[in-house]
Amino acid sequence: MSADIKPDWIAADWGTSNLRVWAMTESGTVLAQAASNAGMASLTRDGFEPALRNIAGQWMDGPTTVVACGMVGARQGWVEAPYATVPCPPVAEGFAKAVTADANLQVHVIPGLRQLTPPDVMRGEETQIAGFLARNPNWDGILCLPGTHTKWVHISADEVVSFKTFMTGELFATISNETVLRHSIGDDGWDQTAFDDALSDAMSRPERLTSDLFALRAAHLLHDQTLATARARLSGLLIGCELAGTKPYWLGQQVAVIGASKISSIYINALAAQGVPATQVQGDATTLAGLTAAYRRLKG
Amino acid sequence: MSADIKPDWIAADWGTSNLRVWAMTESGTVLAQAASNAGMASLTRDGFEPALRNIAGQWMDGPTTVVACGMVGARQGWVEAPYATVPCPPVAEGFAKAVTADANLQVHVIPGLRQLTPPDVMRGEETQIAGFLARNPNWDGILCLPGTHTKWVHISADEVVSFKTFMTGELFATISNETVLRHSIGDDGWDQTAFDDALSDAMSRPERLTSDLFALRAAHLLHDQTLATARARLSGLLIGCELAGTKPYWLGQQVAVIGASKISSIYINALAAQGVPATQVQGDATTLAGLTAAYRRLKG
Repeated sequence: MSADIKPDWIAADWGTSNLRVWAMTESGTVLAQAASNAGMASLTRDGFEPALRNIAGQWMDGPTTVVACGMVGARQGWVEAPYATVPCPPVAEGFAKAVTADANLQVHVIPGLRQLTPPDVMRGEETQIAGFLARNPNWDGILCLPGTHTKWVHISADEVVSFKTFMTGELFATISNETVLRHSIGDDGWDQTAFDDALSDAMSRPERLTSDLFALRAAHLLHDQTLATARARLSGLLIGCELAGTKPYWLGQQVAVIGASKISSIYINALAAQGVPATQVQGDATTLAGLTAAYRRLKG
Repeated sequence: MSADIKPDWIAADWGTSNLRVWAMTESGTVLAQAASNAGMASLTRDGFEPALRNIAGQWMDGPTTVVACGMVGARQGWVEAPYATVPCPPVAEGFAKAVTADANLQVHVIPGLRQLTPPDVMRGEETQIAGFLARNPNWDGILCLPGTHTKWVHISADEVVSFKTFMTGELFATISNETVLRHSIGDDGWDQTAFDDALSDAMSRPERLTSDLFALRAAHLLHDQTLATARARLSGLLIGCELAGTKPYWLGQQVAVIGASKISSIYINALAAQGVPATQVQGDATTLAGLTAAYRRLKG
């Protein structure tokens, strides 16, 4: 990394497990980037500033502005950024300012969103939503943000109207690794037909989910079902349950899926099988667009 | 434990985590009992005989017959007892004989049951079913055996016609302990209204299960939902999903619930809320009745 990089500001995506930073110009050009595994979960409150300096210190020379999103703004983060309540714009106001030892360092943390009924929360995805809307003004429809806790978001008039979180990613990992199914599910491999069948099974019979899960074990014992088939089937069951639960969201709507390409493709294919065309949107670029929009709002 | 106990045979319920033994007379009277945590999962193949001798050795004097059920008969157990295929009587033939160092020790392991389509398996519950039928000959209806992997079993003409396993117990433990919900769910406490509401929610909208789970976290963050309420609600969601998935089993049928009293009461109350009266049957006594029936069959 060159020592002569002098960004106008620094963008930071600071999640539970990872920290990613970009050296930015005023106009939104990326000069350099870096990442570390100094996620919120691994830090105590006084560990955040050193963790940031550790990967972005070489860009800090005199007054430095940082705009950050994600779990860094949680109660256990650097500074709690109280949630904004939907319906509201994804990123508007109420940025929280972290306490820093270095008076030259100004760190602004974007608030998450909350929904009172049914209760729901997000931190980090609001910035991706803001980035998507900055690039697609006046877009109305449904955003799907797959991940550990997949979000389905209803957008209208540049606001988040409502959203719904599914624990699909976390359940996939936990069921694969921590239950009796760990003996029957592989760490990799894929079987598209098994995924498609499971998706269809779960969409038509979501009430059988917790039984269909045990059948992954039994099919291994009785029919030598492969670990890759079981893995694809588990994914299909969980995403099928999710699509059944979000039908009022996506039916007859325009849908965009924001995320990493592999998981996004799985959702896009699953939606296509329901006759719903969905646009794939690159997750990292959208995060950066959202952090840039937040920086501009901050500068007024 | 008195040294002068001389049983005619020994009954053993040998599961994944525990071993329980009873010193029995020919006529089925219990002379003494003992238990240890030497479950199948903690033993290698040559550890079973010492583990049995460790808690039942004082009853072994000369030729000794042991009848055992449970995961001791799995592929990773003392001896693999191949599954019988439903429809069939719960316990009939094909007992597996374990290899023993002591020629005086005869250990007979009861086979589990399998269902080819949809694939399903049980080991241990077949013995409880046999015990129930020994006490209730010609009983037709539905048995529910709640536990780590809850079984719903259709009984007709003294045979198991079909069965269906739900991972309810294991999912309850794994979700409570291994996901983000661990911060929001208590180890104890109960809220009956929360259970009832969640049961009703999941029965009418099972497709929302994986979203309703995340709402347990959000309700804690936003509405200070207590850990006890979340615990009862998690139980209600999982059992509600299970009752929705087993409706073709229990609707209009006579139902008996075999298990420990606490978890059985939860199921019986949940079924009562659907207008289904269910009989509670004590699990341990039923296991022993099944082992006794198996012993008699063995003796011809």
